[in-house]
Amino acid sequence: MKRRRFLTGAGTLAGLAGAGTLASPLAAPALAQGKRELKMVTAWPRGFPGLGTAAERLARAIAEATEGKIAVKVHAAGELVSAREIFEVVASGAIDLYHGPDYYFTDKSKAFHFFTTVPFGMTAGEMDAWIYEGGGQKLWDDLSGGFGVKPFLAGNSGVQAFGWFKKEIKTAGDFRDVRFRVSGLGGEVLRQFGVEAVTLPPNDILTALQSDVIDAAEWVGPWNDLALGFHRVAKNYYFPGVLEPSAAICCGFNRKLWDGLAAGHKRIIAEVIAADNSRMQAEFAAGNNEALHTLHKEHGIKPKILSDDVVRQLGIAAAQVVADVGNTDDMTKKVYESFIRFRKKAMAWSNVANQAVLAARQLSFKYGG
Amino acid sequence: MKRRRFLTGAGTLAGLAGAGTLASPLAAPALAQGKRELKMVTAWPRGFPGLGTAAERLARAIAEATEGKIAVKVHAAGELVSAREIFEVVASGAIDLYHGPDYYFTDKSKAFHFFTTVPFGMTAGEMDAWIYEGGGQKLWDDLSGGFGVKPFLAGNSGVQAFGWFKKEIKTAGDFRDVRFRVSGLGGEVLRQFGVEAVTLPPNDILTALQSDVIDAAEWVGPWNDLALGFHRVAKNYYFPGVLEPSAAICCGFNRKLWDGLAAGHKRIIAEVIAADNSRMQAEFAAGNNEALHTLHKEHGIKPKILSDDVVRQLGIAAAQVVADVGNTDDMTKKVYESFIRFRKKAMAWSNVANQAVLAARQLSFKYGG
Repeated sequence: MKRRRFLTGAGTLAGLAGAGTLASPLAAPALAQGKRELKMVTAWPRGFPGLGTAAERLARAIAEATEGKIAVKVHAAGELVSAREIFEVVASGAIDLYHGPDYYFTDKSKAFHFFTTVPFGMTAGEMDAWIYEGGGQKLWDDLSGGFGVKPFLAGNSGVQAFGWFKKEIKTAGDFRDVRFRVSGLGGEVLRQFGVEAVTLPPNDILTALQSDVIDAAEWVGPWNDLALGFHRVAKNYYFPGVLEPSAAICCGFNRKLWDGLAAGHKRIIAEVIAADNSRMQAEFAAGNNEALHTLHKEHGIKPKILSDDVVRQLGIAAAQVVADVGNTDDMTKKVYESFIRFRKKAMAWSNVANQAVLAARQLSFKYGG
Repeated sequence: MKRRRFLTGAGTLAGLAGAGTLASPLAAPALAQGKRELKMVTAWPRGFPGLGTAAERLARAIAEATEGKIAVKVHAAGELVSAREIFEVVASGAIDLYHGPDYYFTDKSKAFHFFTTVPFGMTAGEMDAWIYEGGGQKLWDDLSGGFGVKPFLAGNSGVQAFGWFKKEIKTAGDFRDVRFRVSGLGGEVLRQFGVEAVTLPPNDILTALQSDVIDAAEWVGPWNDLALGFHRVAKNYYFPGVLEPSAAICCGFNRKLWDGLAAGHKRIIAEVIAADNSRMQAEFAAGNNEALHTLHKEHGIKPKILSDDVVRQLGIAAAQVVADVGNTDDMTKKVYESFIRFRKKAMAWSNVANQAVLAARQLSFKYGG
């Protein structure tokens, strides 16, 4: 389905309305019992590990915590609207809430990049700190609120992989003419090194690799990548995912609907979403731990680290790409500046805290067998 | 108040019961409205940043999310019982729940160390993954359940500082004869290097430093340490906190009380606690970011990193200390082995993910100004 068709109103949405699947006045019996069913659209295939499953877990948690007063019906990507359209239908009130990454909506505002991830941006823990405690939520409320959406931080994939390559990447010169399946601003950065950035839906990536339509691909990290089988074709698995150092997930409500909820229900839902932020991060971490082990032990894939020189060159290019995006308009500039300011202090802390403690532990690897 | 006095039943608890402050049958009017007031004891001074404030925030969140059906009254450390006694009074049912670090209760089982932190253990994100997704919760339920407590992961301080030293620590030999205020297994590790490990309550540390009773002190990290003013006396602030790479906080309920709660309330409370786990980590990260900046800009304190050689020696000593603790008894051994197994895979992942991405970002520091 094409975006334009949807925007002109001649497309799927009208069809959906006709089929009675859109958010609608509550059925009388449900209302009489004080019950309510909300419709959620997601950016994920049904049951997609870590993301689709999180949307479904969140829906169940809301129902259980409200003792069934609020039920949430989850529609996977493509069932009602495509992944890229979930924001629009929630903004309009046609659907009640969405679960997805806000950088899918950068045609509305470039500022949305910063609420998912940007190249050389922040880790999941740093994103949590910026959103919850560093002024990020207020900016996000302003940004999404302008479109009629109330956004919540609902999870994070954590650090991603840089990607699977058929050939080795030893210098930045090795990027030249690589046809690389890559999304977002990462593609912009890599184009400067001669990469031909390609976008493909996840289920088409393996075939494209096998048939030499592409030479390389990034998707998420070991847990999700192993399931799609890229290791069968591309043997060079590069880290770290500097182009997506984390990817925050949003649960966005139609703002009018959100404002009309009972205070107790609002509180419960906000708590449930924040709890799922923790759980999703934990699930990705545990899933990646296991999958990296499996890739190594069962498939002989040993992760490779990009050279310092490649990283340095990517960092310089990324700074320019992100600054250009950040200076698109006033709202985006406000978000960009807050993000960069926070990251600067977060880096100083990470350098003596998380990074230093992980390096120290690695140094003492033999400890405890 | 001394622990022994409490255990013999001749001490404060009896006094408390007499004063009517212990968990007691509900007042009739409250019960009639289906309302319930729970008593929480904490390991923190009232209003203590990040920890005492989290206990109070958690209490408010439970009340708001249950629409006042469950109120939680918070008692700071020392108000009803001391920090070290909070587990005992909840286990017995005298108090309903506690908020504190489980390594305060290692006189009950050495296994509790692993549910807070051990030297060269796991980061906050890795602890989340182990507890939520790596079998940790089941082991914790078994351990605490044996004493009549239902434990929940309620937060984490994140990476701590190694500590404040009057003199520089350039080699492991510089630890000799240093009188160091340090708690937990870290003290055990450092004793092997000739450190005289001292325990002192937080409010006594600065005076002890000023009067040369001690030569060095660790407390939490920049946010909490700045507030206590150590920078005025000790100028060498060492990182990373390898002896406490994170510190998980428990919210533990009396198990019988927990089992008797309505399913909906159980669900809400579990969600609220998991949400606060996210929030506490975010608050510590943001607080440490700011405080590190302030220490540098306003007080001229530039953090120092322990040398690789010191770290390596500490790691070897720590491995033995932790293994000794881990082999204390069958239950502790089960927990230790699960912890070590999980950490091994988490390290492989961290090395290409969090550690690698933070190092890469540092390398490209100039990006974005």
